[in-house]
Amino acid sequence: MTTSLPAPLIDNLQYCNFSEKIFRELRAGGVDAIHVTIAYHESFREMVLNLEQWNRWFERFPDLLLRGTQASDVRRAQESGRTAVFFGFQNPSPIEDDIGLIEIVHQLGVRFMQLTYNNQSLLACGAYEEEDSGLTRFGRQAVAEMNRVGLVVDMSHSGERSTLEAIDASSRPIAITHANPDWWHPALRNFSDEVLRALTARDGMLGFSLYPHHLKDGSDCTLESYCAMIAEAANRYGAEHLGIGSDLCQDQPDSIVEWMRVGRWSKKIDYGEGSADNPGFPPMPAWFRDNRDWGNIRAGLAQVGFSDLEVAGLMGGNWLRFYEESFGPAQTS
Amino acid sequence: MTTSLPAPLIDNLQYCNFSEKIFRELRAGGVDAIHVTIAYHESFREMVLNLEQWNRWFERFPDLLLRGTQASDVRRAQESGRTAVFFGFQNPSPIEDDIGLIEIVHQLGVRFMQLTYNNQSLLACGAYEEEDSGLTRFGRQAVAEMNRVGLVVDMSHSGERSTLEAIDASSRPIAITHANPDWWHPALRNFSDEVLRALTARDGMLGFSLYPHHLKDGSDCTLESYCAMIAEAANRYGAEHLGIGSDLCQDQPDSIVEWMRVGRWSKKIDYGEGSADNPGFPPMPAWFRDNRDWGNIRAGLAQVGFSDLEVAGLMGGNWLRFYEESFGPAQTS
Repeated sequence: MTTSLPAPLIDNLQYCNFSEKIFRELRAGGVDAIHVTIAYHESFREMVLNLEQWNRWFERFPDLLLRGTQASDVRRAQESGRTAVFFGFQNPSPIEDDIGLIEIVHQLGVRFMQLTYNNQSLLACGAYEEEDSGLTRFGRQAVAEMNRVGLVVDMSHSGERSTLEAIDASSRPIAITHANPDWWHPALRNFSDEVLRALTARDGMLGFSLYPHHLKDGSDCTLESYCAMIAEAANRYGAEHLGIGSDLCQDQPDSIVEWMRVGRWSKKIDYGEGSADNPGFPPMPAWFRDNRDWGNIRAGLAQVGFSDLEVAGLMGGNWLRFYEESFGPAQTS
Repeated sequence: MTTSLPAPLIDNLQYCNFSEKIFRELRAGGVDAIHVTIAYHESFREMVLNLEQWNRWFERFPDLLLRGTQASDVRRAQESGRTAVFFGFQNPSPIEDDIGLIEIVHQLGVRFMQLTYNNQSLLACGAYEEEDSGLTRFGRQAVAEMNRVGLVVDMSHSGERSTLEAIDASSRPIAITHANPDWWHPALRNFSDEVLRALTARDGMLGFSLYPHHLKDGSDCTLESYCAMIAEAANRYGAEHLGIGSDLCQDQPDSIVEWMRVGRWSKKIDYGEGSADNPGFPPMPAWFRDNRDWGNIRAGLAQVGFSDLEVAGLMGGNWLRFYEESFGPAQTS
């Protein structure tokens, strides 16, 4: 790739309640690309309704947004002062029980799919189950098909064993798009050193989350602590395998976090990473309230000693490289 | 377009029971592109299953086929000795009652959609209803949306009034992909001189059918009669607006023609263009049994006096030009 453009700013996970206001904040914050979640528990047909909503936004805001399907769309967004929007699922529910839907959703522009969302799925086991029996029969075939078409395996909400098996089973690098190391903050959704070493040893990517339940000291986490954690992760795993996946859920009503947690599978309330005292979305840290605050993180990374080149990679250059290698069909030899 | 390739051979309507045998016959016959029907009465989800079947064929026969989504794919097919396969619907059932599905099906590669299949639809009226009240409210909005995204309006099975209104309502040229003039053979599915003049005056395309019920003398129609009809049509409408849409339904069991005719909407048998005596697929004319017989038609067209350039256009060059103008988003001024 020959380009004189600077490295892009990419946030590899958002689930905002999107609106013109947020689209303008993305531009104000200089965000060149985002990966957005379009399914938690949706069936295929329900997920298509979410794609339709995005199509209406692309039609309505052609000066702010473009539909991203390949890495070069990030460059196109940079050149035209827009934000490229890439689609992903946090659950395999939209592919139902049908392996043929993997290529169909890729043809519809979907580029990331988690094999699980907290619970056992048809493909693998989530982080919240008591026992993780690893990839299922369908799961192994789904990973191979995802590799073939260029749909990235994302294990953000998966259990430890399933994640290790997915890293091993996948012929192409996979991602944990939004989580942190558990040696910094031992949340159920954060990952062990063993998983992160295995992930990055196979050229996989880790996107650091900014969701308060994943942060040391929660909403009170300091920018210094967050950036020092990234510096330590770079020491352990190599800065080139790291980026951001903020998990920003701006402007969502608390009913949405309930939908994420219980979908249609439970008649009870499940508080997930929250609690009965704190059931809703937690407040974001003061230094990352919304998309206009990316400059704080960029400055914080420089402060802990990263070079300009490393900061450029962490802020999006590494995700761009990963997009370039991941979104097309597998090279047949 | 600058290319040294000859004009392609394009058949703009087939609904064969596709198989490796037919894919090889397409190559033996030098067919560079086909438009295939993937929906008669299917819901959105059922239509996606048909796309999945095609994806499996593209994966299995990469040396014979490629998935066509833009005009340049015809050239890519010519250069690599394959057949480009473009998708279309003979009924709007896959978009259900949801205008957002028009862009979604375009994103899935669909390039033609009939507004009706014989019966009244949500969009317009079919050729078999007693009374045709023209485009519906949804129909007018659907045509505008199809124009915007680049999904071609096909009126092959529509009533006269609906067809005239669609020609008028559409901001881009439309198509009758598979039918003949009723002045040659007065079948219910063939079209009046008035419709064909209106269609071609707006740069629309007519694809001549080879389905025996649309032919003078049915299965006994002669090549000479067929080609003389095309010559007369060229005199009336201009050869540049004409091509072939054979409606070849090779190897289909008769249960399929029943599905086409009655879908799930009738508990009775409807014989459509057939009869109780002749309920199944009629035999093809001896000079066009399958895709290996295109040379007969090419020779027949030369025989009735068309120039080499005109023959090249009729055999596919005109469809290629139409594809170039039709499959992309509308130019915004």
